[in-house]
Amino acid sequence: MTSVHIVGAGLIGASIGIGLSAEGWPVTITDADADAARLGAAIGAGATRDASTPAPDLVIVAVPPSVAPAAVVSALQEWPDAVVTDVASVKAPIARAAHDSGHGARYVGSHPMAGREVSGGRAAQGDLFKARPWVICAGEAPASAVATVRAVAAALQADAIDMDAQAHDAAVARVSHAPQVAASAVAAALGPLQAEDVALAGQGLRDVTRIAASLPAMWADIARLNSHALIATLDHIIGDLEDVRDADDIGEALTDLIERGRMEVARIPGKHGGPTRDWVPVTVIVPDTPGQLLRLLSDAASAHVNVEDITIEHSPRQPVGLTTLHVLPESAPALVDALTAQNWEIASS
Amino acid sequence: MTSVHIVGAGLIGASIGIGLSAEGWPVTITDADADAARLGAAIGAGATRDASTPAPDLVIVAVPPSVAPAAVVSALQEWPDAVVTDVASVKAPIARAAHDSGHGARYVGSHPMAGREVSGGRAAQGDLFKARPWVICAGEAPASAVATVRAVAAALQADAIDMDAQAHDAAVARVSHAPQVAASAVAAALGPLQAEDVALAGQGLRDVTRIAASLPAMWADIARLNSHALIATLDHIIGDLEDVRDADDIGEALTDLIERGRMEVARIPGKHGGPTRDWVPVTVIVPDTPGQLLRLLSDAASAHVNVEDITIEHSPRQPVGLTTLHVLPESAPALVDALTAQNWEIASS
Repeated sequence: MTSVHIVGAGLIGASIGIGLSAEGWPVTITDADADAARLGAAIGAGATRDASTPAPDLVIVAVPPSVAPAAVVSALQEWPDAVVTDVASVKAPIARAAHDSGHGARYVGSHPMAGREVSGGRAAQGDLFKARPWVICAGEAPASAVATVRAVAAALQADAIDMDAQAHDAAVARVSHAPQVAASAVAAALGPLQAEDVALAGQGLRDVTRIAASLPAMWADIARLNSHALIATLDHIIGDLEDVRDADDIGEALTDLIERGRMEVARIPGKHGGPTRDWVPVTVIVPDTPGQLLRLLSDAASAHVNVEDITIEHSPRQPVGLTTLHVLPESAPALVDALTAQNWEIASS
Repeated sequence: MTSVHIVGAGLIGASIGIGLSAEGWPVTITDADADAARLGAAIGAGATRDASTPAPDLVIVAVPPSVAPAAVVSALQEWPDAVVTDVASVKAPIARAAHDSGHGARYVGSHPMAGREVSGGRAAQGDLFKARPWVICAGEAPASAVATVRAVAAALQADAIDMDAQAHDAAVARVSHAPQVAASAVAAALGPLQAEDVALAGQGLRDVTRIAASLPAMWADIARLNSHALIATLDHIIGDLEDVRDADDIGEALTDLIERGRMEVARIPGKHGGPTRDWVPVTVIVPDTPGQLLRLLSDAASAHVNVEDITIEHSPRQPVGLTTLHVLPESAPALVDALTAQNWEIASS
């Protein structure tokens, strides 16, 4: 069984430790912060190391992105026979640092894509990575080293994806980093509005700005590490916004942008890779009293309709929520009939 | 009882007609398209007019934004004793046209904020406006005319909000129009990516780009009518994105932007005007088999926990969904215990 040493007992490191320990892997864990290290050991994320602890087969560096390159290099130097991986959301700069250290053949990049609203070892969960993408960037490493890291993803029931580090960084700049920046910019543009004006916000604004509530620290690290790809993506977005702003016919320019955006949105995998737009929405007026949502789904189930997705739009001023059930087109008529028969008010279908 | 004539039998016009007719209001409806007019009458949106039909007390102009100003003016001219309102999502240019016609005192602006994924009279629903904001811009009109329009909003159980037309247009540019443009720009920036790169998309990108699937036609009209406020908002957003792109320290610039965005997101009303961030998320791994979501909510209800909101993150590659139940902080521990006892896998809480 591969022995693992985890450097960093934060949310990701401790979650990996708990998950691998639960699967019977021999795991040790450490942290620059002695309290964090003790907590990690206390919650079953791994044992502490002493002079008698044998060298690990695999070192997983789970530190903040800003210090990941240096931490990976020192792990490669401290454990001359170990495979070293990391969990940072930017991969090329770390691969470069590993290569420049002369130990690049023992480095395999990882990016377990499991977000959390919270951080810190206290929030660790062994199944944090289940069903989540786990990107693996082999770089210069041989198949045996890559297999060692892939075994970790498999043990945590993550969804391993092989990618080139540069391609990964370019991709996450567009699917993750730039959307974060844009969402924050849309939110910041609410600044001049009075509270009663902001209250006109609909579900669209709530969707666009939901991730704007993220804490800045990790994003600042990511932006610094992935600045090249992020800047290129911001250039793309700024250029499209300028084309609309400066157009002789703003309607024509916006039509072009929306058409291009629609083509790309259609490429975003929905449920199991299928396009979410295959579903049709049935919007129901749901009183805000306990159990109503349960009653709604019960009535949907009694019509043998499988609800693919749910979105709830809360009314700022009234004690009702507009709940939209997304179902397959062929199921929608039966759902509407069944809900109507149960005296639900259908707002739209 | 106020007699109403509706000009335009599309989704909004026909829905208003169905709703008011159901409340016993005398309603007539017409449409430039004879088929649409016949459909409107057929689905109970209002009667057709003939020479013997008495003049209406209120005319509701429900035509596309691009033709709304002209249609409002001709209604004011055709019915010299009627109050005229409209439903366009931009208000100042229409108020200006009404004023310039010399009949501004009989015009009251309306903006019923009921979005739909679909359009056309065939999709009309009498309760489309229930619990939705219905902005009323009195302009030069006397209280009696405003009361006539407010009665319509009340009959449709909409949530009437009095606003100045200019303030309304400035607000919707920031809470609705610019977010649409930005979402499309973020989606369009996915263009250079391969399908497997786009597959790295998480819930964040899906949230930000959901409205990018909108059809462009109405947005083009809106952008032309509200170009001044929209351009000012795009300027604001572009400036913030440029500050990040061009910063000496991109991390520092992004931190500033995210901090400002967080302050504004906190002002977006959540459930009943309360900030949504009062809820805490409990994420559960839900197998993709019929009835699982129902079973999850049943188990939550058995723990006497009221689910405030639900978000479902579908796994692109695996037959499970990560379902997040948003609950009050004091309910979270009981929910986690109850779900764990029912053998649910808690991904995070």
